Amino acid sequence: MLIVQKYGGTSVGDLERIRNVARRVAKVRREGHDVAVVVSAMSGETDRLLGMAHEMHEAPSERELDLLLSSGERVTIALLAMALEAEGVGAMAFTGRQAGIETDAEHTRARIERITGERLKAALSEGKVAVVAGFQGISPHSDVTTLGRGGSDLTAVAVAAAVKADRCDIYTDVDGVYTADPRIVSGARKLDRICFEEMLELASLGAKVLQTRSVLFAMRHSVPLQVLSSFTDEPGTLVTEEDKDMEQVAVSGVTYDRNQAKITLGRVPDHPGVAASIFEKVSAAGILIDMIIQNVSHEGTTDISFTVPKVDLRKVKEALATITVGDTSLSVEAEQDIAKISVVGVGMRAHSGVAAQMFAALSAEKINIKMISTSEIKISCVIDERYTELAVRALHDAFSLGNPGGEGT
Amino acid sequence: MLIVQKYGGTSVGDLERIRNVARRVAKVRREGHDVAVVVSAMSGETDRLLGMAHEMHEAPSERELDLLLSSGERVTIALLAMALEAEGVGAMAFTGRQAGIETDAEHTRARIERITGERLKAALSEGKVAVVAGFQGISPHSDVTTLGRGGSDLTAVAVAAAVKADRCDIYTDVDGVYTADPRIVSGARKLDRICFEEMLELASLGAKVLQTRSVLFAMRHSVPLQVLSSFTDEPGTLVTEEDKDMEQVAVSGVTYDRNQAKITLGRVPDHPGVAASIFEKVSAAGILIDMIIQNVSHEGTTDISFTVPKVDLRKVKEALATITVGDTSLSVEAEQDIAKISVVGVGMRAHSGVAAQMFAALSAEKINIKMISTSEIKISCVIDERYTELAVRALHDAFSLGNPGGEGT
Repeated sequence: MLIVQKYGGTSVGDLERIRNVARRVAKVRREGHDVAVVVSAMSGETDRLLGMAHEMHEAPSERELDLLLSSGERVTIALLAMALEAEGVGAMAFTGRQAGIETDAEHTRARIERITGERLKAALSEGKVAVVAGFQGISPHSDVTTLGRGGSDLTAVAVAAAVKADRCDIYTDVDGVYTADPRIVSGARKLDRICFEEMLELASLGAKVLQTRSVLFAMRHSVPLQVLSSFTDEPGTLVTEEDKDMEQVAVSGVTYDRNQAKITLGRVPDHPGVAASIFEKVSAAGILIDMIIQNVSHEGTTDISFTVPKVDLRKVKEALATITVGDTSLSVEAEQDIAKISVVGVGMRAHSGVAAQMFAALSAEKINIKMISTSEIKISCVIDERYTELAVRALHDAFSLGNPGGEGT
Repeated sequence: MLIVQKYGGTSVGDLERIRNVARRVAKVRREGHDVAVVVSAMSGETDRLLGMAHEMHEAPSERELDLLLSSGERVTIALLAMALEAEGVGAMAFTGRQAGIETDAEHTRARIERITGERLKAALSEGKVAVVAGFQGISPHSDVTTLGRGGSDLTAVAVAAAVKADRCDIYTDVDGVYTADPRIVSGARKLDRICFEEMLELASLGAKVLQTRSVLFAMRHSVPLQVLSSFTDEPGTLVTEEDKDMEQVAVSGVTYDRNQAKITLGRVPDHPGVAASIFEKVSAAGILIDMIIQNVSHEGTTDISFTVPKVDLRKVKEALATITVGDTSLSVEAEQDIAKISVVGVGMRAHSGVAAQMFAALSAEKINIKMISTSEIKISCVIDERYTELAVRALHDAFSLGNPGGEGT
């Protein structure tokens, strides 16, 4: 097999941990597999560099910032290649540029446009482990770019796609994807498999294992992912294309997100184009709207509610303040103490009644539902934040997620 | 004017010093000059990275070592560019690759083969300060290389040649080139000007201000150099092509080198080819021979003496041990307590009697001369090491180097 492994900053946080990673890679190599390894900067290094940059300039140039930050991964790839050689395993280190990771010119948040991976393929075909710097690429102007949050995962998936790897193993500090947050639900169970669509919903709903963009890239290029821990030898959770087995379970997991705020606009004139102009203003400010609800109309006006990330609340209010509708100004009300609780599962497509079962479970705990949104494989409810843990546990029980095989409605 | 400035690791040793460099550069920029700045890694950083490499592998791969070490200058160029922007001066940082510094593939000691400097010229023509990473380049295989000792000086000179700078200012922790080591000769005088040939001799004779390779590169490309201190505002020493003024002085400086050892081979058969085979062996071991003396022949054998760097003494003895001359083995005698004292000056070409004056001055102090070698602009004597300071002071006096204008024989 050809396997791409990715280790984050914590896994390569000091020299002893880098040696540990080298031993893990060497073991897999000795089992006869070809291996490419993607690594982040040593934990703390990126913050240290950022700190220096901000001492130099309150708003440092993003081009120079990327150049600065990219030095962190250069150190780890060189050291890991050396550690592998010390383990008797041939290895070569490659920067983002050398790996052929071509991005756009959006410094600090670049998007991968193409990855050639020629030098990686050459090294692999010589039996060497290719050690690749995560998080970085090269712009059309031949400048170093960084990929933003979750960038190293994205590098790993892109490398896996480029070298046509059989699997991309993402090592993290958790050992897989769970049916619910184990810190809240003691009976939460690690999932053996999950499909890309479910993983996407979980990522976008706040489960912090993988970033949406990496899952999307893997899905688009059909790269099977495995999420697992670098501190144990247990298998993790495999994220792959949907297969027949998965369809038997209606709900795979319960997740929650406390980072949203709810905005309610009162007395919005109920005629065509008004709602559109409101959401245009908000999205022009670069804010991602999640759920939207419009109530029935009373006397020519209506109420509109929607959720936005809490951190963007100030920006949303500023954007809304610029809107005037005739003589009346909009009434804007923000609610911050909310949580979004979601159940996710591809099996919902085949099973009816999941929504009803969810509402019943919440109602049995006397939890009021403020907003509802659904997709083909997800149902989300906004509730009062203080009921978050209670709701997650109730839903985990209601769908019997603690039992292997799930609830099988 | 278009000026290239180079600051070493001490000058950019911490954030405050980087800010100081930014202020210096900004001042020159505001005076209307175009500026490119070459910087080293922050002092201590290269050693820190080397230390980590050797913890990973006792003999780390040189390719990966170069990749690792090159991260040091990336940090300084990014931070310096940010500090310049904070001073209100437009700046852009460039790695060795981005500056177009193309080298051979000899990792850790690469030679510059070509420098295009296209991006530097573009930045300069936009009125920006180009901040360039010293010490690094790019191999024909597109791998990062480092230039070895004195590499950042070499980068500065190469950049100056590429952008056709009017001057290349090398900032160091000394404020110029002196007539003798000021730690030994209290009356040593800073030279305002010196020519490339003299600087070359001084560099090769052990004066540590500039490395031979940088001076050679500057001479070949006619780049005027200035050696000066980054901690004062005094002008330094200008190193340029020879001009008429210089020729009036027979001797510009006195220098010494305590890092040589003297080898004497006894009973060497005095027939053609023997000496050649001996020196072939030594140079095949990669050892640089400096002075060579062959005594007159006695009964078909002769004595040969030569000097080599002390650090290579063991390797020299090993190389010589492999030589058998008929049945007799070579008698090898090593003397370590020696010093080489030299006087240097382009004026010697026009002035006779400098050698005689030198020998007389040493003899007046009862210092025995063990070996002599001369070039057009230099006379060197090997003496007993314990007389080093005495000899340097005697020669400094004899040639009146403490007086501006020198001794003017």
